[in-house]
Parts: sequence; structure tokens; C-alpha cells
Amino acid sequence: MAIKGIMRAGSVQLRVKEMGPAVRHYTEVLGLIKSHEGNDGRVYLKAWDEHDHHSVVLREAETAGMDHMAFKVSDNDALLGLEHALKNAGVILTEIPEGTDEVTGRRVRFTVPTGHTIELYAEMERVGNGLSLDNPEVCPDGLKGMHPTRFDHCLLYGDDLDGSVKLFTEVLGLQMAEQVVTSDRKMLIGAFLTAATKPHDVAFIRSPEKNRFHHASFFVESWSDLQLCADIITKHRVPLDIGPTRHGITRGGTIYFFDPSGNRNETFCGGYIHYPDRPTLTWTEDDLGRGIFYYDRKLNERFLSVTT
Amino acid sequence: MAIKGIMRAGSVQLRVKEMGPAVRHYTEVLGLIKSHEGNDGRVYLKAWDEHDHHSVVLREAETAGMDHMAFKVSDNDALLGLEHALKNAGVILTEIPEGTDEVTGRRVRFTVPTGHTIELYAEMERVGNGLSLDNPEVCPDGLKGMHPTRFDHCLLYGDDLDGSVKLFTEVLGLQMAEQVVTSDRKMLIGAFLTAATKPHDVAFIRSPEKNRFHHASFFVESWSDLQLCADIITKHRVPLDIGPTRHGITRGGTIYFFDPSGNRNETFCGGYIHYPDRPTLTWTEDDLGRGIFYYDRKLNERFLSVTT
Amino acid sequence: MAIKGIMRAGSVQLRVKEMGPAVRHYTEVLGLIKSHEGNDGRVYLKAWDEHDHHSVVLREAETAGMDHMAFKVSDNDALLGLEHALKNAGVILTEIPEGTDEVTGRRVRFTVPTGHTIELYAEMERVGNGLSLDNPEVCPDGLKGMHPTRFDHCLLYGDDLDGSVKLFTEVLGLQMAEQVVTSDRKMLIGAFLTAATKPHDVAFIRSPEKNRFHHASFFVESWSDLQLCADIITKHRVPLDIGPTRHGITRGGTIYFFDPSGNRNETFCGGYIHYPDRPTLTWTEDDLGRGIFYYDRKLNERFLSVTT
Amino acid sequence: MAIKGIMRAGSVQLRVKEMGPAVRHYTEVLGLIKSHEGNDGRVYLKAWDEHDHHSVVLREAETAGMDHMAFKVSDNDALLGLEHALKNAGVILTEIPEGTDEVTGRRVRFTVPTGHTIELYAEMERVGNGLSLDNPEVCPDGLKGMHPTRFDHCLLYGDDLDGSVKLFTEVLGLQMAEQVVTSDRKMLIGAFLTAATKPHDVAFIRSPEKNRFHHASFFVESWSDLQLCADIITKHRVPLDIGPTRHGITRGGTIYFFDPSGNRNETFCGGYIHYPDRPTLTWTEDDLGRGIFYYDRKLNERFLSVTT
Repeated sequence: MAIKGIMRAGSVQLRVKEMGPAVRHYTEVLGLIKSHEGNDGRVYLKAWDEHDHHSVVLREAETAGMDHMAFKVSDNDALLGLEHALKNAGVILTEIPEGTDEVTGRRVRFTVPTGHTIELYAEMERVGNGLSLDNPEVCPDGLKGMHPTRFDHCLLYGDDLDGSVKLFTEVLGLQMAEQVVTSDRKMLIGAFLTAATKPHDVAFIRSPEKNRFHHASFFVESWSDLQLCADIITKHRVPLDIGPTRHGITRGGTIYFFDPSGNRNETFCGGYIHYPDRPTLTWTEDDLGRGIFYYDRKLNERFLSVTT
Repeated sequence: MAIKGIMRAGSVQLRVKEMGPAVRHYTEVLGLIKSHEGNDGRVYLKAWDEHDHHSVVLREAETAGMDHMAFKVSDNDALLGLEHALKNAGVILTEIPEGTDEVTGRRVRFTVPTGHTIELYAEMERVGNGLSLDNPEVCPDGLKGMHPTRFDHCLLYGDDLDGSVKLFTEVLGLQMAEQVVTSDRKMLIGAFLTAATKPHDVAFIRSPEKNRFHHASFFVESWSDLQLCADIITKHRVPLDIGPTRHGITRGGTIYFFDPSGNRNETFCGGYIHYPDRPTLTWTEDDLGRGIFYYDRKLNERFLSVTT
Repeated sequence: MAIKGIMRAGSVQLRVKEMGPAVRHYTEVLGLIKSHEGNDGRVYLKAWDEHDHHSVVLREAETAGMDHMAFKVSDNDALLGLEHALKNAGVILTEIPEGTDEVTGRRVRFTVPTGHTIELYAEMERVGNGLSLDNPEVCPDGLKGMHPTRFDHCLLYGDDLDGSVKLFTEVLGLQMAEQVVTSDRKMLIGAFLTAATKPHDVAFIRSPEKNRFHHASFFVESWSDLQLCADIITKHRVPLDIGPTRHGITRGGTIYFFDPSGNRNETFCGGYIHYPDRPTLTWTEDDLGRGIFYYDRKLNERFLSVTT
Repeated sequence: MAIKGIMRAGSVQLRVKEMGPAVRHYTEVLGLIKSHEGNDGRVYLKAWDEHDHHSVVLREAETAGMDHMAFKVSDNDALLGLEHALKNAGVILTEIPEGTDEVTGRRVRFTVPTGHTIELYAEMERVGNGLSLDNPEVCPDGLKGMHPTRFDHCLLYGDDLDGSVKLFTEVLGLQMAEQVVTSDRKMLIGAFLTAATKPHDVAFIRSPEKNRFHHASFFVESWSDLQLCADIITKHRVPLDIGPTRHGITRGGTIYFFDPSGNRNETFCGGYIHYPDRPTLTWTEDDLGRGIFYYDRKLNERFLSVTT
């Protein structure tokens, strides 16, 4: 197979302040499917078209934010190769044995220069996408809320952007699909990194504080579905951040909103297909408003400053 | 980077009976962009969001059909690796030196068991997608016709299906995203093969004759764009095959029509994202009608039998 | 108010062979809302955005087909005026007293030259559209199936087309938005008649037998919603007639399918807005294929010949 | 015919500060079609699916704003009836003889209590919608920009709201589809008035100054087309006001932007069909944010205060 190494953003573990409203939000509003509730109270969720056991884990905690983001690797050999490369790069790895959460294979955990905890794994229990593997329909019955097809990516804020970008591109094998630089082009401000063909699997924005979480994004199939998301947001009186609108970066359609703990969610549609021979696009800070919000063409303070 | 080896269906060379009407069809109706006309009269075309010089080559000939389909490989090292693997598998390779067509790097050409000519290449002159690499817009001005974003895949008919599938999966590294089998599951009838994350880059259907061409497909961004395609087909009195409808296989939206020489074209939208850990789906012949035309749920003779 | 007289196609009473499957079809698949079940076993249904008590009545009977189609008149004075005009035109009226079905005001019933039973009424109990009249949301919760917004129109087949058209246009005040004529333009074959601004409220096609029912149509909001209709049709294995496609006549998007008794349903989207100063469009029989199925550009036998 | 009296918002005459950029905006960006340039320099424009000569007139002037809005009446008899009713109501009428602008029939002009100049006319030269009246296609070739199908409505600001509403509903025969009232429900703040079945043909908002123009709106066919509008706005660097978003009032999709003189334009899609028996909806001032911008659920200062 042509995809070797990190395949995609596999899952994200979010801290929520109260589990009840959080689960209602992620299942009834966002429309994820609950796979499992752990003995430790964590709730495991998946988007409908994912075959793996989960892509979102909710953990109740005092503060909101992201515990870690995990990338799925093509196979255990590739995982061993990445561990070797990480060690060579001086990264300290923690191993989480297979089955610690009952469903995931062996994981390695480490901290990247922007302060975020990242995990890699190659195996997870497969629960299927609700459709038969033989002669399937095109979608399952009983989907709720926005019902995205997949967890798509996260945007993370942190200080040592250059360090994290170097680690993800040179050691972990991601590519920079788009970058944001200061107007004098001397400093990198943002990086949109892809593991395979999505416009991004993870993105980083330079900001003073380490380990901040900006949003987790979920993929919906069309601009029409994005209107459905917007209708649902208002009907449920979910706090809207901005949208529906479009990004210049990735070209994707977007709407941002907040879960009950203040973690930002996005539903996202469209965007180009990225191949390794596609040139990296560059945005300069003076035109970044259009890069982030293609229609408004200006940044908004809340989008820039509110993170968890 | 995580994608190594064959990345995607890169280009297809089609035979057309008269170049004038063919070029009008592919530029005004389908809405490809003419890159170049060769000294030998061949016309090179690209879809707007491709950065490479061309993805379609038209060659005037007595009969319609496909000369060859070419896959783009991630880099020249990977190309050498594939050549080595092909030779080991007993495949006879013809080398086409860099620059033979002025824009493509070194190519290797070979015939697969279903009789089709396949090429591999790792380099092609880059002409860009009509947008700046710095602070781009979301689409260029002046697009015409259906203006797909990319050449997506071909469907080929031939006799030794098992042989071609074995070569593409075991030697060339593609994966079988979906397969069609007889109702007793004893014989493979169809195979949908992906190089990276598209539902297919090339598909094969078993049929008695070698080296038949069913269609070349181009990607449009939405079901709404597919209605635009349909409107254009009727306004230009292009022969419609079937659609707009939906495939069960790939889940993609589709419309089929013919170029003036009788080569079948498709515009296609949607479809899932395929990763190597996604299970292969199986369709049985008794339910194949729904697999191919999800709404009609029955096959039509023309679709099955008309090839070039 | 500017609309006086007949406002719209208000309701249709259909015969179904078995009430259970019929109700399941009209509520779960088509997604109408059940308002009421009469003592005589008739089931009353409405589309979600209608404020009146019902727009579809199902009656169990030996044979499928349409009992009658009813038009809603702006007010009782206008109803009296229409009764007067009908009597003057020699039409025999039957009066159905207010409240016969518990919810509809006084009705008049008569037979038109094509053999169909038509009713007029000005009042019906109002049950609302599921949204508040104060500060409403944009749609109610819990909609099922295709959930059209309204009953839109019927297409009826019958022999004395000229007679019915004359009655509807000269006595009842509808306008001919589009007409179909033989290629020599000497005979009217079809008439698309509008009461206000929809492209049609009722249409007639000339055919040898009196009082045949071709389809009842329900309005959905977009071409995207029409894809949802198509997905539902296949998932429920509802017999598809044709679509999704587009009409040349009305320009509307369309999909046709059958209820369990064989009555044809349509969901329809788009179409122009008709005002009295819009010219009547004319289709000739030789181009009627494109008029009815704009993409296929040819008629199909089942569509022409299967009626109930 | 069932529609008698005022049928619809027929045309609007706007003042622009410089004709060249204005014409470029209304033809290249908005995508209206230029019908004619008068000897006095006025430019007459139409939306593609209108059959009448024009629906927008541009007049070069020192200040931006609206000269008048004109309503099309079903026929000259109905026009005489409305004149009679206006005179009875004490309204002073100015008659503009047939042909003053070469293409419009006899007009009457008057000022309504909010200070706006209104005209009524029953006839205008018909130029067609670019499609044949026999066997037409579904849309003409060569459409540019946003290419709305029609001029839809205006929103006007003025002081004596009660007076204008009374005149439009009691004398001119429009209906109030939706109203906005103070939270104590004692004062009317806004009125959305329909002549036939659109959610509105003209709307008024109470504001201190007479004769202010808020926007002219043009109808596009879908939420997908609204995204196209948004893309065009950014590509042409047209000043965006807000959108794409959705109204609670009318439920329509919307995007607002400014012409080069600062007149606000809207493109609008969707919305319900209004019949005379549909109840008037009421919005209270405390929930008006959601009424105007259903997704943001809050008003924005520019939208409320910037008029021409």
C-alpha cells in the first residue's frame, strides 16, 4: 500500500467539566455515536463512517482542554520505525501497553515542543460504520444531529511552533500543505500539516502559552450539510463562534461553535485533495483575515484568543 | 511523507476520431483547460485544480478508446523500486526517456493481464492551478463547462481480471476498496483499486475481450455541481448515458455521457475517504444493480456493453 | 389581498388497497404527518409546513387511484362566486355541508370533462406548522423521511382535455403556464395550470380513458433534498419510477416513485415563480421528451402509460 | 386569474455616485443584464428570468439611495381601481404618462407616510428571459456573476411605520406576512409585506428619519448559489456586510453587500410560500437578533444603522 507511517488524525481526548451535558452535546448536537463508557467514567465516541472503536474520548475534569491527540499509524512495523526516529530526535517516549483502554493497541506518548501531548498507535478494535461489508447501503439509519462522517483534524496553539513543525515534518513524516508567515516572511506563524491527502490532520498556530487547544474538527459532506449544522446550532442554542463561512486556507466550508465546557468544535466540508507533489501554499499575515475567513476577510478577536 | 509509491491516477491518453470536436467537447463541455498541442497533433489537457501539465492527452486515430493510463509515483526512487518489482514479477517494461513528450519525466510502460497499457512516471512539468501560491483565491476566473477539479479514475474492461488485480495489488501497491463477486462468491467480477485515499484510482470489470475502455472520470465538488453537469449535457445535446444518480459502490454521485468519438466520460462527486485500514467491501452479482446504480437498482445494457 | 378565488391545490384524496402499509409509506417514507384518523377509517395527513389540518386523505378501497382533488379558495365569498360561475357554465354541483369530515368548511363537488372529481372549499381547521407563531424556529424537530414542505400539485390523465382546460381557465380562473401540443400544433396534449405563482397546481394530459390519476407531488426545498429522497427510496426499497432528474416543463427537479398500492408520488423542487404576466410556454410533441425529462430527453413507456 | 391588483415588487430606481463602477457592479458582480441606456444616462437592468424590460434603474446623482420603488399591477383596470382607492385615502397622485421612459405604461407616483416614493404600473415592454417560448432550455447561456433570477424586494427605513403599513395593507392590498413588535407588544417596529406568495415584496423598519433605503434584494435559487455569491464578493473585493447566513424572518438564506456607492444589496434564497390564509408571524424585539440573523442570534450595528 502507498500509505505508510502516520495515516491520519485518529482520535482526540478532550476534558469536559460535566460529563452529562458534554455527552448530550457530542451525541445529540454534533451527532457522534457513543461506543463505550469506561470504568473510569471516560466516554468513547465515534463519527458514523469511522470503522474504529472511537475517535473522541471525553474525560471529566476541572478545566476544559485537550489531554492528547492521537495519530493512527499504518501498521506496527511503521510504529516501531517512528518510535526509533523519535528517540533519535531526542524525544522522550512513554509506552502505553496494549489494552490499557481495552480497545487500543500499543501506544507511545510524547510531548511536542508546543507542549501538546501526542500519541501514536497502529491498532484499535474495529466496530464498523453501521453498514454491512457486503452489499451496503450508503448511510445507516438513525443518525442524529450534524452526524459528521469523521473526526478530521485539530488546531493547536503553542509557543515553539518551529519545534513542533520540525518534529512533525522531519520525524513524523507529515507535510506542510499551507503555512502562515509574518508579512516580512521571516517568522512562521501557522502551519497546516497533512499526513496523507486531507488538507490538514493537525495545524499549529504560534502563541505565547504552551499546550493550548483551539478546536477539534469533524467532516460533513457538503455546504448543504453545513447549513443543517447551523440550523441545529441555533435550535439547540449552542454558542456559535462564527460561520457558516469559508476558509481561504484549505478552501473548506466551516462553522465553529462551543461545547458546554467551552471547547471549540468545527464542522468542516470540502477542501482540496493534497498529494505530496502539491506545492505548499503561503499566507502572509497582512492577508491572513482572508486566509482564515475568506468571506469576512478579517480576523475576529474571539477566534484568535479563546482557547482551552 | 506517508504516501510512497503510486500516488494516483495521473493521466489518460484517449483516441478520438476527429480532433476538432473532441477538443471542443473536452474544453467547452467538460471544461478542461488546454495546456499544449504537440508537434504530432496530440492535445494535452488538465483539470483546473491540478498542478501538473496535463492529465488527459487526446490523440486522433481511426478508432476511439484508450491508448494508456498513467499513474504518478511519489518520486524517482519509488519508481525504480516499482520497476524492480515489476521485473521480478515477469512484467516486460518499455522505457520512455524523459522529455519524449517535452513535459514528462522518465516513464516505464507495460501491459497488464487485461491487455491495457499502463505507464508510471514520477515527474511532470508543473504549470500550477491558476491560483497564486501566495494568498490564493478559492478558484480561478474563467472556468468553463463542468470544470471538474481533477481527473479521478478510469474503469477498464478485460479478460484476465485476476491477473491485473494481482499485479496492481501485490506488485504496484494498490488496495482493493471494493470488489464484485459472483453470487456464489467463487469468481471475482469487478475490482475497485485505490492508490491512496480515493475510493478508486482504477477499476476493472471482467469481460471477454482484452483492453477495453469503459470510462474516464473527473471529479466535481458536489451534488449541486452534478446538476450543473447535467444541464450542460442537455444544453450541448451531448449523448447522455445515465444520471445524475448515485453509485452504491464508492457512494459517489455520478453522471455518464459520451464524447463525440463515443468514449464514455463520467463526472463524479462525493465518495468516502479510503485509508489502508478500511475493510474491503464486497458486492454480489445478484445485488450489483444497486451497487452500480443505487437509485435504479438495476443494470442497464448500454452501461454494461458499450466500451471503446 | 391580491390573491382572490382559487389559491392553490389544497388536498387530494387517494384510494389505497391496504391502509397499514399506505400509512407507513406516507408517514415514514414520504414523511407526512398524520393529523387524524376518521371514524370511517380514512387517514388525514399534512406536510409539515402547511397550517391546515390536512392535504392528503387516504381511503382504503379495492382499487388505487384518486377520489378527488380539492382546491382551496381565498374566502367564502369567492367560493360563492365560483359556484355561481360553475352553474352558469352548466356544471352540476354537489354540496358537502360544513363539518362533514369534522374539519373542512362547506365544500362543492363537481366532475370536470376529463372525468375527475374536483372540490372547492374556503375553510379548514388550522393546526399549524409545528412552529410557534411568535419568534419561530426555521423548522420543527422530529421530521421523518423526505419531509416535503407542502402538497404541491397533481397530474391527471383524461380524454376531454380541452373541456377541462376551458373549465379551469375560463371558469375557475387558473392560468396555463405551459402547454404541450402536437407537432403540427393543432391539438393540445397537455396543460400545466396554475392558480397563483407555482408553475402548476394541476396538470392534465390527454389520454383515452377518463379519470385517471398520474401522480400527486410534494415540494422539497432543494436539489440536495432530492438526493435525500432518492436515498430514502432505495433504503426502503420503494419502487422507483424515474429520477432524480429535471423537468424541462417547470424546470423543477423531480423524482417519481410508487406508494404500496401503485399510486405514483413525486417529490419536486425548484421551478420558476409564475405571475399572470408571464407568457405561456409551448412544447411540441417532437421535443416532449426533453420537456418531461430534461436530462434523458426521451419519454419512457412506464411514465406515459402507468396510471391509477 | 387569481392574482388581481399589485402582483409584485416590479422595479427599483437607485441613485449611484458614478455610473461606470455602478454598472460594472450590477452587471459583472451581481450579474444583472443591461437592457438599455436612456438618453438621460439612466441605465436599465433586468435579472435573467424576468420577462419585463427592467427591474433596476440606475441614476447618477450626488448621493446614493433609492429614488423610488415600483410595483407591478395585474392590469390597467386594477391600476385604475388602486388609484381610486388611493385618492379616497387622501393620497396625492402624480401621473407619469405612458412611454415617459419609452418602455413603461402609464404610472402613478405617490409618497407613503415613511417618506418613500412609490409607483404603480401595469405594463412594461416585454423583452423575454433569454429563452425560447417554444421548447425552452432551463437557463440561458452566458450568465455572469451571481445571476439572480429576479429582483425580489426592498427593505425601507422610515418614521411613520404605522402609516405606511396601513396604506400598503388597507389600500394597496398587501398582507403582513411577519411583523416585529417591541417586547411589550405595544409598538410595531417592522413589517414584512407581501403582494402575492413571496414572504415579502417590501418591508419597513421604523427609524427616525424619513425615506431611507436599507437594501434591494435579488433572488438566487439555492443555498449553493449563495456560496457562489459569497465567493464572487470576495474575489471582486466587494464590501461584505454580513453572510452567508439565514434569516429567522422569512427563513431565507442571505448575504448582504454594498454597491460602489454604498447602497446595500442582498442575494436571497429559499423562504416559504405565503398564501393569504397563512398566519402573520410576530417577532418581539428581545428575540429580534435571531429573527434577522438566525445563526448569529444578535443584531449588528452596521446592519441596523447604515442606510442610504
